[in-house]
Amino acid sequence: MKVLLFDTFGTLVDWRTSLIAALTDFGHQKGRQFPADELVDRWRTAYEPMMARVRTGKLPWTDLDALHRMALTELLPDFQLSDLTVAEIDQLTFGWHQLSPWPDSVQGLTLLKRKFILAPLSNGNFSLLVDLAKFASLPWDTVLGSDLFRHYKPDPETYLGACELLKTSPAEVMLVAAHNYDLKAAQSHGMKTAFVARPTEYGPHQSKDFGPEGAWDFVARDMIELAGLLGC
Amino acid sequence: MKVLLFDTFGTLVDWRTSLIAALTDFGHQKGRQFPADELVDRWRTAYEPMMARVRTGKLPWTDLDALHRMALTELLPDFQLSDLTVAEIDQLTFGWHQLSPWPDSVQGLTLLKRKFILAPLSNGNFSLLVDLAKFASLPWDTVLGSDLFRHYKPDPETYLGACELLKTSPAEVMLVAAHNYDLKAAQSHGMKTAFVARPTEYGPHQSKDFGPEGAWDFVARDMIELAGLLGC
Repeated sequence: MKVLLFDTFGTLVDWRTSLIAALTDFGHQKGRQFPADELVDRWRTAYEPMMARVRTGKLPWTDLDALHRMALTELLPDFQLSDLTVAEIDQLTFGWHQLSPWPDSVQGLTLLKRKFILAPLSNGNFSLLVDLAKFASLPWDTVLGSDLFRHYKPDPETYLGACELLKTSPAEVMLVAAHNYDLKAAQSHGMKTAFVARPTEYGPHQSKDFGPEGAWDFVARDMIELAGLLGC
Repeated sequence: MKVLLFDTFGTLVDWRTSLIAALTDFGHQKGRQFPADELVDRWRTAYEPMMARVRTGKLPWTDLDALHRMALTELLPDFQLSDLTVAEIDQLTFGWHQLSPWPDSVQGLTLLKRKFILAPLSNGNFSLLVDLAKFASLPWDTVLGSDLFRHYKPDPETYLGACELLKTSPAEVMLVAAHNYDLKAAQSHGMKTAFVARPTEYGPHQSKDFGPEGAWDFVARDMIELAGLLGC
């Protein structure tokens, strides 16, 4: 095993808490009242079907920044925020570039980096992932964004495209993720798999991924334990 | 200015000394006598016209690993080495993934990383640059290889492709290079430029790039001085 690829949103960074904080701050600064947690939960729910439309070809290739923006714009009227300016919508969308890591993420990756090549394999676009790594101090060796492949996970082009760029066989690569669907896809292409549960990712609305649901190669409580399991 | 992109071969790593050492070791291990320095110099000279053939469309897209391999294979008969095995040719070609940095490179990049996003913008392919960074401890935020653009510098697609992936305007990006032709191309696309001389890159055969030959934004003796000039 030579390379560890990581799902990022949910697996390494706590998007929900970070975005609720950013939207709450925004509301205070602008003197606007709205339920930030509800907006964030609906935002996340709204962009999933948009990615599906890209996957099925109903929408041409559109990167995650643009999907985030479209999804937010559609939601704003329900929160009496349809008068936001373009700059304000951009500012909120950019919140996805500034998410806090889970407490174990940076230390775990730093340990794992001693022995493996580390990169995100995320549905985020390249620039989003680069900004996010800078903000959250994620010590990547390189970044793999979905715009390099013009496909979203779990499309095969993402997993196999990463192996092709890195010139590794799938068996030399392990995907680390908090989501069973992602590991299932990676395993189907011959990659190794590691599951790390993030049971608070969706806050009170979490309904799945509390535990491993497949024959994954490794299961760890957090990234530091994973580093230990891998001898780092 | 948000992003610093770096030419890599010659600018950050001493390919000539490293490859001469690797080929000399190889000769000792295999009990073969050949002038390693001459082979390295001719190897470097031989792959330049191959890149030109890719640039002009005479050769379909071929990555740098493959060009290195082709160029070496063509040279072997002149050094009485035409009996090398495929594995041996692969091993020698992989030498380009394991080059030593100039003495100031790692410290300079580490300082610059505090303030800027750092990435190579090299004619090397993605996997070569990832391996090289791991070997030489180059602390990139991300890696940009020529295979992402399927073009070699100084084709515009490389400079502009990097800006597009990073979602930056050229004016927010500076290219750092030891080669005036590279800076000239970057500047023509609106990028900032910094020149760092590497007068021993080609050993006794160096014939150019002893000093700046354009109105570059910064000129520094090495990467540590450049970090100082940029307030890092």
